[in-house]
Amino acid sequence: MSLLVVGSVAFDALETPFGKTDKIVGGSGSYISLSASYFTPKTNLVAVVGGDFSKSHIEAMRLHGVDTEGLQIRENEKTFFWKGRYHTDMNTRDTLVTELNVLADFDPVIPESYQDCSYLMLGNLAPSVQKTVLERLRKRPKLVAMDTMNFWMDTAWEDLMKTLKLVDALIVNDSEARQLAGDYSLVKAARKIMAMGPKILIIKKGEHGALLFFEDKLFYAPALPLEEVFDPTGAGDTFAGGFIGFLARQGEVTFDNMKRAVIYGSAMASFCVEKFGMERLMNLTPAEINGRVSQFVNLVKFEALQL
Amino acid sequence: MSLLVVGSVAFDALETPFGKTDKIVGGSGSYISLSASYFTPKTNLVAVVGGDFSKSHIEAMRLHGVDTEGLQIRENEKTFFWKGRYHTDMNTRDTLVTELNVLADFDPVIPESYQDCSYLMLGNLAPSVQKTVLERLRKRPKLVAMDTMNFWMDTAWEDLMKTLKLVDALIVNDSEARQLAGDYSLVKAARKIMAMGPKILIIKKGEHGALLFFEDKLFYAPALPLEEVFDPTGAGDTFAGGFIGFLARQGEVTFDNMKRAVIYGSAMASFCVEKFGMERLMNLTPAEINGRVSQFVNLVKFEALQL
Repeated sequence: MSLLVVGSVAFDALETPFGKTDKIVGGSGSYISLSASYFTPKTNLVAVVGGDFSKSHIEAMRLHGVDTEGLQIRENEKTFFWKGRYHTDMNTRDTLVTELNVLADFDPVIPESYQDCSYLMLGNLAPSVQKTVLERLRKRPKLVAMDTMNFWMDTAWEDLMKTLKLVDALIVNDSEARQLAGDYSLVKAARKIMAMGPKILIIKKGEHGALLFFEDKLFYAPALPLEEVFDPTGAGDTFAGGFIGFLARQGEVTFDNMKRAVIYGSAMASFCVEKFGMERLMNLTPAEINGRVSQFVNLVKFEALQL
Repeated sequence: MSLLVVGSVAFDALETPFGKTDKIVGGSGSYISLSASYFTPKTNLVAVVGGDFSKSHIEAMRLHGVDTEGLQIRENEKTFFWKGRYHTDMNTRDTLVTELNVLADFDPVIPESYQDCSYLMLGNLAPSVQKTVLERLRKRPKLVAMDTMNFWMDTAWEDLMKTLKLVDALIVNDSEARQLAGDYSLVKAARKIMAMGPKILIIKKGEHGALLFFEDKLFYAPALPLEEVFDPTGAGDTFAGGFIGFLARQGEVTFDNMKRAVIYGSAMASFCVEKFGMERLMNLTPAEINGRVSQFVNLVKFEALQL
């Protein structure tokens, strides 16, 4: 089924304990759509870049089945730029530079050919922009998922609450969930967040896996213990892309499919962190993805015995 | 099969965000043996207390099937005392008071009736004391597991290396594993630690579960997401007790049994944190433990699909 992804397409400059990069392509919309492209025949992208953005990268996205009709190119402006530095534990990072550029007044225009989308992933953007996307879709998608971040909780709380009411699924990390709910316990936080709107909640815990809450059900997906996390940039978005992409492929939003989608999202994220930026995600095969999912199956498999 | 536990039996005074306690019974030997007692008909304990220790607690341990012939009581001395305060995240704590008392020159005497033990759990003690226990056993147990902590890495590195060479299994938390190996990556740390001796390594990650490494195999046991961690004291020892107790019950040290043992250890730890000290562990039923294990089964269960 058709998937629409709205998010940022950006330049990132990264410093990790393993090295640094000049400007490379990043952004939530890039990671989500590329990750989802492995699951859906067509992934529609709505985003904005400046005239400085790489045409060859847009072509590479198209070759992966990402429809870029909705990618606005403002020739006389500059692409959103973020520069960050990771600490040794790779879980914390400092933002060194943020230049919003074209993202500052992003107006998410939905091409007519995207109007029939059944699945929608709203990447991390201002909650008011996320809401505008929903208002501009004439038919409500079957499943609407969104990401957000602490910054919007600090600066746009009321907008965020309005948007949260309209979505089916929220995908955030543990510190974001704690801040959103004002509760340290993730179980309690989940209950509070689901009362804000989303009936599906995914809390990402980085190297510790992810929790999926749906109605009164709970699923714990481990993360694959890795030798080395080379660059965690985009891992959360890659997870979201795998999650929504797999659901769009399956077509039925059941708890069983959601659990599988979380595993596929985790598998995609485990590839993402192996190289800088989107490098690893550009060259995956279905066999590699299946192999990684098998590792997840074996990682948690046990046969219980009763006392 | 018979199990021998060597560790501390102590008084703890605790401060958590939920309240504080006066001196209550604690210590690695207490938690390990009580937890293991739910799996084995007889758990032999070697430890030392002072004349101030509670006779009724010793009686309660006996009623749980803990053999206390090896519990030395030094009437004119005082029991080991630890006072600590937990922070909001419950993962970090400050030690406010440590009074070694009888533990300062603990000489682990093994009663004759304990000599035939097949399973041995060496709780957190000076590595030289742990080694002495092994030297005093005429027959090497089928499985020897040990715990240790950062303090011994800082103050008794060479002793620790000697003891590590002699054991089959090491059970530590993630920060201890990282310090022991000098590597942040737990996968790399595991490889280095297993080169120091143990062929089985369990890395406990608190609310994030536990990793079991055995030869080239890996198992990830989740922790049960809890509404509230009331008091984490003893959770790691309770885990170790459930792990070694379950293995002793099964009698065969296979990877399948180790995986189950990690799940039973995790289940026992999830009970431990529900109340202060050992309160919750004193009143468990097999049905409650089976029920908790079923929750772990459901928590990670999914059916994979190939792309």
